[in-house]
Amino acid sequence: MIRIFVTGGTFDKKYDELTGSLSFDDTHLPEMLRLGRCRVDVSVRTLMMIDSLQMTDADRALIVEQCRHAGESQIVVTHGTDTMVDTARALANASLGTKTIVLTGAMVPYAFGSSDGLFNLGSALSFVQVLAPGVYVAMNGRYFDWNKVRKNTQTGVFEAI
Amino acid sequence: MIRIFVTGGTFDKKYDELTGSLSFDDTHLPEMLRLGRCRVDVSVRTLMMIDSLQMTDADRALIVEQCRHAGESQIVVTHGTDTMVDTARALANASLGTKTIVLTGAMVPYAFGSSDGLFNLGSALSFVQVLAPGVYVAMNGRYFDWNKVRKNTQTGVFEAI
Amino acid sequence: MIRIFVTGGTFDKKYDELTGSLSFDDTHLPEMLRLGRCRVDVSVRTLMMIDSLQMTDADRALIVEQCRHAGESQIVVTHGTDTMVDTARALANASLGTKTIVLTGAMVPYAFGSSDGLFNLGSALSFVQVLAPGVYVAMNGRYFDWNKVRKNTQTGVFEAI
Amino acid sequence: MIRIFVTGGTFDKKYDELTGSLSFDDTHLPEMLRLGRCRVDVSVRTLMMIDSLQMTDADRALIVEQCRHAGESQIVVTHGTDTMVDTARALANASLGTKTIVLTGAMVPYAFGSSDGLFNLGSALSFVQVLAPGVYVAMNGRYFDWNKVRKNTQTGVFEAI
Repeated sequence: MIRIFVTGGTFDKKYDELTGSLSFDDTHLPEMLRLGRCRVDVSVRTLMMIDSLQMTDADRALIVEQCRHAGESQIVVTHGTDTMVDTARALANASLGTKTIVLTGAMVPYAFGSSDGLFNLGSALSFVQVLAPGVYVAMNGRYFDWNKVRKNTQTGVFEAI
Repeated sequence: MIRIFVTGGTFDKKYDELTGSLSFDDTHLPEMLRLGRCRVDVSVRTLMMIDSLQMTDADRALIVEQCRHAGESQIVVTHGTDTMVDTARALANASLGTKTIVLTGAMVPYAFGSSDGLFNLGSALSFVQVLAPGVYVAMNGRYFDWNKVRKNTQTGVFEAI
Repeated sequence: MIRIFVTGGTFDKKYDELTGSLSFDDTHLPEMLRLGRCRVDVSVRTLMMIDSLQMTDADRALIVEQCRHAGESQIVVTHGTDTMVDTARALANASLGTKTIVLTGAMVPYAFGSSDGLFNLGSALSFVQVLAPGVYVAMNGRYFDWNKVRKNTQTGVFEAI
Repeated sequence: MIRIFVTGGTFDKKYDELTGSLSFDDTHLPEMLRLGRCRVDVSVRTLMMIDSLQMTDADRALIVEQCRHAGESQIVVTHGTDTMVDTARALANASLGTKTIVLTGAMVPYAFGSSDGLFNLGSALSFVQVLAPGVYVAMNGRYFDWNKVRKNTQTGVFEAI
């Protein structure tokens, strides 16, 4: 059984046609898992639905505690890309021991035709099943140890440091 | 560097609007990798572009030889789902030693809105980077050893045996 | 009030993931009208769900009778493109008097990402509201009198004759 | 020959993956016409690429002058929905005589999977070919005289007044 914690981010942004702006509503995760014909046993829980630039220390503490108390040893966290590495660090510093935690996100909302979300979800769900315990970021088809990655804000690409 | 060998299958079926039927043209792999913002170093080569129900022993021998002579130790093979397990067996019987080979495909063509292809590609590219040498099938978000999987033709789902 | 009669055709073809072939199931019309935020008062009825190459004289007679007995004076018929002109002729020969009937279809199934279906539906629903009584084909953003059009089978384009 | 003037609006909004916000780039009109297999003779010109809430009197004057000097007597203007009716009024007040001008737009950007844009474009291009000279708004599958329509900001639907 794999646990998926949803925190929002570009992954789940939708277009609000009355205001003409981007907003959050329900997560697209169940629909994405259905589209991927995913038969891994997963349990999805939405912790928050926010832009990761708005994420506070209290939000991160909540994510850490949810990961700590989850019964599953394999956890995927969907997250905005801007501060994904910060949350990865918070999780790593919490010493969650024997758990494999993979953070992923998207550069373009799933609801857009051109989203990388489905690719990234397939990638994160796969990495979490085979990587050793630890905290990782899965983006651009690659995985990175939490402390060896940064988002290049000029290119939008995650790269090793 | 990961090698991707394209053999066709549902993954790459397109709708031929003049004949009103499904056919093959060029592979969608480069477009899918672009959509996934994939930054893994990959090299794509099309070996054939056929429905896997049409695949002959000679076709399988060609796939085996291409995998044997590839310089890369991580190989993804895109393949029709109907005989994917047969090709996995042929590859396993060829004793390719230290290579990790992951076969994947799709239940719905990538060109359709509702395809599982992007999810499966993200999954296969991730598994191939971390699994031990051997031959595997990656479908439905899971991976299977080549000799422990079958496609359930009633449900379209790959399941462990 | 506009009546929409559904007869199948490429418009409504779907991909059957268990057989790997194209087939018909329910019509996509209601979903398409929803996507188009259509607020025209329409009533959708499925008469048949077939490839227009399979359409018999009896099928055409049924379409004619349904148009004759419809209470609405504006009627859109969704139809396979291959014999759309034949059905238009059958309707014209039936002398339905004061009704405006517009036949339309698609070169690529709506369920595919690259379909012309939504464009054609918007077009046909618009033409039917403003054209004088008669029988027309609406394809490629144009409308044609029933007896001044043919499908160019080499290009897939409807052209004036 | 139909002239299409592009002014921006939701139609052409794109998702900027580096800033995580909506922005404008090139128009999607040529791609949409290709998708619709449109064979009407059209000439597309981008006048501006803005949110219609930002549209000034000077912008409207520019649109009016471009319509006045266009050689075509059938003109489609793509426009943000929020002030589409204002621009329609400016065009009507300019007494452009024998021209048929149809304004259209979209509630959801074309680049999103769930856009009404293709439906609306098919509709506007059809209405402009058959309506008498005048200024019209084409939305929701309907057409309205410029002075008999408003956008209901609660529902996002254009309705007759």
